[in-house]
Amino acid sequence: MQFADRLNNVETSAIRELFKLLGKPGIISFAGGFPDSAMFDVAGIREASNAALTEEPGAALQYGATEGYQPLREQLAAFMTSKGATDVAPENLIVTTGSQQALDLLGKTLISPGDKVIVEGPTFLATIQCFRLYGAELICAPVDGDGVQTDALEALIAQHKPKFVYLIPTFGNPSGATLSAQRRKRVLELAVQYQTLVVEDDPYGDLYFGEAPQPSLLALSASVPGSRELLAHCGSLSKVLSPGLRVGWMIAPAELLAKATMCKQFSDAHTSTFAQATAAHYLKAGRMPATLDHVRTVYAQRALAMGNALRKDLGDAISFVQPRGGLFVWARLTGAGGKLQSGAELARRAIEKGVAFVPGAPFYARDPDLATLRLSFATVDVAKIEEGVARLAQAL
Amino acid sequence: MQFADRLNNVETSAIRELFKLLGKPGIISFAGGFPDSAMFDVAGIREASNAALTEEPGAALQYGATEGYQPLREQLAAFMTSKGATDVAPENLIVTTGSQQALDLLGKTLISPGDKVIVEGPTFLATIQCFRLYGAELICAPVDGDGVQTDALEALIAQHKPKFVYLIPTFGNPSGATLSAQRRKRVLELAVQYQTLVVEDDPYGDLYFGEAPQPSLLALSASVPGSRELLAHCGSLSKVLSPGLRVGWMIAPAELLAKATMCKQFSDAHTSTFAQATAAHYLKAGRMPATLDHVRTVYAQRALAMGNALRKDLGDAISFVQPRGGLFVWARLTGAGGKLQSGAELARRAIEKGVAFVPGAPFYARDPDLATLRLSFATVDVAKIEEGVARLAQAL
Repeated sequence: MQFADRLNNVETSAIRELFKLLGKPGIISFAGGFPDSAMFDVAGIREASNAALTEEPGAALQYGATEGYQPLREQLAAFMTSKGATDVAPENLIVTTGSQQALDLLGKTLISPGDKVIVEGPTFLATIQCFRLYGAELICAPVDGDGVQTDALEALIAQHKPKFVYLIPTFGNPSGATLSAQRRKRVLELAVQYQTLVVEDDPYGDLYFGEAPQPSLLALSASVPGSRELLAHCGSLSKVLSPGLRVGWMIAPAELLAKATMCKQFSDAHTSTFAQATAAHYLKAGRMPATLDHVRTVYAQRALAMGNALRKDLGDAISFVQPRGGLFVWARLTGAGGKLQSGAELARRAIEKGVAFVPGAPFYARDPDLATLRLSFATVDVAKIEEGVARLAQAL
Repeated sequence: MQFADRLNNVETSAIRELFKLLGKPGIISFAGGFPDSAMFDVAGIREASNAALTEEPGAALQYGATEGYQPLREQLAAFMTSKGATDVAPENLIVTTGSQQALDLLGKTLISPGDKVIVEGPTFLATIQCFRLYGAELICAPVDGDGVQTDALEALIAQHKPKFVYLIPTFGNPSGATLSAQRRKRVLELAVQYQTLVVEDDPYGDLYFGEAPQPSLLALSASVPGSRELLAHCGSLSKVLSPGLRVGWMIAPAELLAKATMCKQFSDAHTSTFAQATAAHYLKAGRMPATLDHVRTVYAQRALAMGNALRKDLGDAISFVQPRGGLFVWARLTGAGGKLQSGAELARRAIEKGVAFVPGAPFYARDPDLATLRLSFATVDVAKIEEGVARLAQAL
């Protein structure tokens, strides 16, 4: 069978092979990129789903508007307002089938084969493959503990004239980094100066430990004239409520939103109205603040435990910035004391010792840093985090 | 903002303008392409959803495999077996976000810009736009009361060497036609003879009135050696249970299924596990046969009422084949008695008289028959069908 040319642009085996090993009994896994099922508010979701089926069974089970179920759009606009983006109206967003679909729609709507897109190096794996399927050439902007380096970003924008710039500015996957306030403002200024669309992917911003993070680019855009018309923002309930609902959303300038809606019509017609009505009732019931408090508290404990254990057991053989939110510790093997410097090699040895994680190289669209690794603390309790890190130290 | 070149291939305003008029109070609408909300088995779906959240809350709310939730794949394989495709294993199918996503994945996986795809003339509107977004050039094969004309189809395959042939062989949308037994066999033979993939889209096959229709191409493929490896089959719960669940599936040769799964990973990661687990429990509970009996009975009454009313009120000014299943009457204005021959003009006048339907021209990928119209009887009760057809006669 002859497949479409676009399939030649992607390669997906890198991590898949590793995941096959995760079935081994007794493995402690830091490899996942998902929230802990034990924290799902099952009772709240059941109540919301039953309310949807009782109060509006027709709407919850029938075809719906491609833009999204109106009561959910209203709830999501209010949710964004509560997070500082005070001027988001329901009409400014569409509901997507997880935020993965928002990425797909951005690719479908904007990328012609050969177009350039700037992403962070490293960035979300599925973003890399998603945009490549549409023929994008990806350019990597360097990231440090304060997020993407805006001077380097400006030079890359000037040089490559990208179709858009894709960033995960808050608790980035995999970097865990958060863009500083100064750089946030600078990114929006660059958008205006170079008339370049910026995509802010923000699945983790609600998962902060302690202080709330910097305002989102979306919230900040109100103070940088012209930037709102060059900004798309992707949100998701997956990390805070439930990935299984597959409810994400995209806020974007009207023209882009209209084209994305047209494309979505032919992608899946609309996102499950059953899931949308359930999410709408959940948000309406006012349960979200307590749910967020709960997950923040638990993940904060786990992040702290992982940071402490890494410092204690691996010492100067590893370097990382203690995460202030999100699901991940992004680390680098220093080679100190003659220890391993290859993330991939450590991953292989770690599996033998009974602990799994994802090496960092595949997260780079190009020029991978082979010494990096991503460790998720989200789904493992504190005792197992300590045991897993001890095993990691043995593998090093 | 500069959008991707692929957006130049689609045009979606044709029907949208008409739909804007449907909000007018008192309009009787034959325009929809959806099932009647009043027939949804709300109690059964609520029970299934609660069972899913009680028995496996983690799985129902967590990320899931891109291929689909395994218990649902098992139920769907059993459902296909019950419909005569006795050799479908869970591994032979993936779950899709409605069967619209199966079409999108076929496009993404198979169509390079400039590739040719043969479709029926007329065919499902969203199929036309979906494949065009991937750059397909669409070729129309002629259809009569027995479905696609296989002699013409063979000539088109030989001439155009299409990437694949897309058919809705049973109670087609919009044609209502069902492919005869002889032609079904011939389509499969052509697939083998010309080594051309055939896509069978089958959302309506379960909605038969009276006798069950011909076996699906999928079921028949067992008796045409080599054809199974050149056949993709798309199914959906949308027309028989609930569109809002957005649960469809695709059965295809292993290599194609693997590529489609890879593409789906970057389209939406997976279909809502909440919806999938609900559908799995619904099927497992054994409720489907009674649900199907119910919708068949109601739609059969409405189809009969519409056919009778059309014959009585419009006489020889309209010609159509009485549907034996599905949701639609596909009709043609004959011009007899000096009456209207333009479907679009009749649609405009009909709105004035208080009845809506969709003119047939947009359903043709090329060379539209301007005298055609599609009337859905699915969501209107018998009394309103009679009233609506009377209004239609006044508009003619």
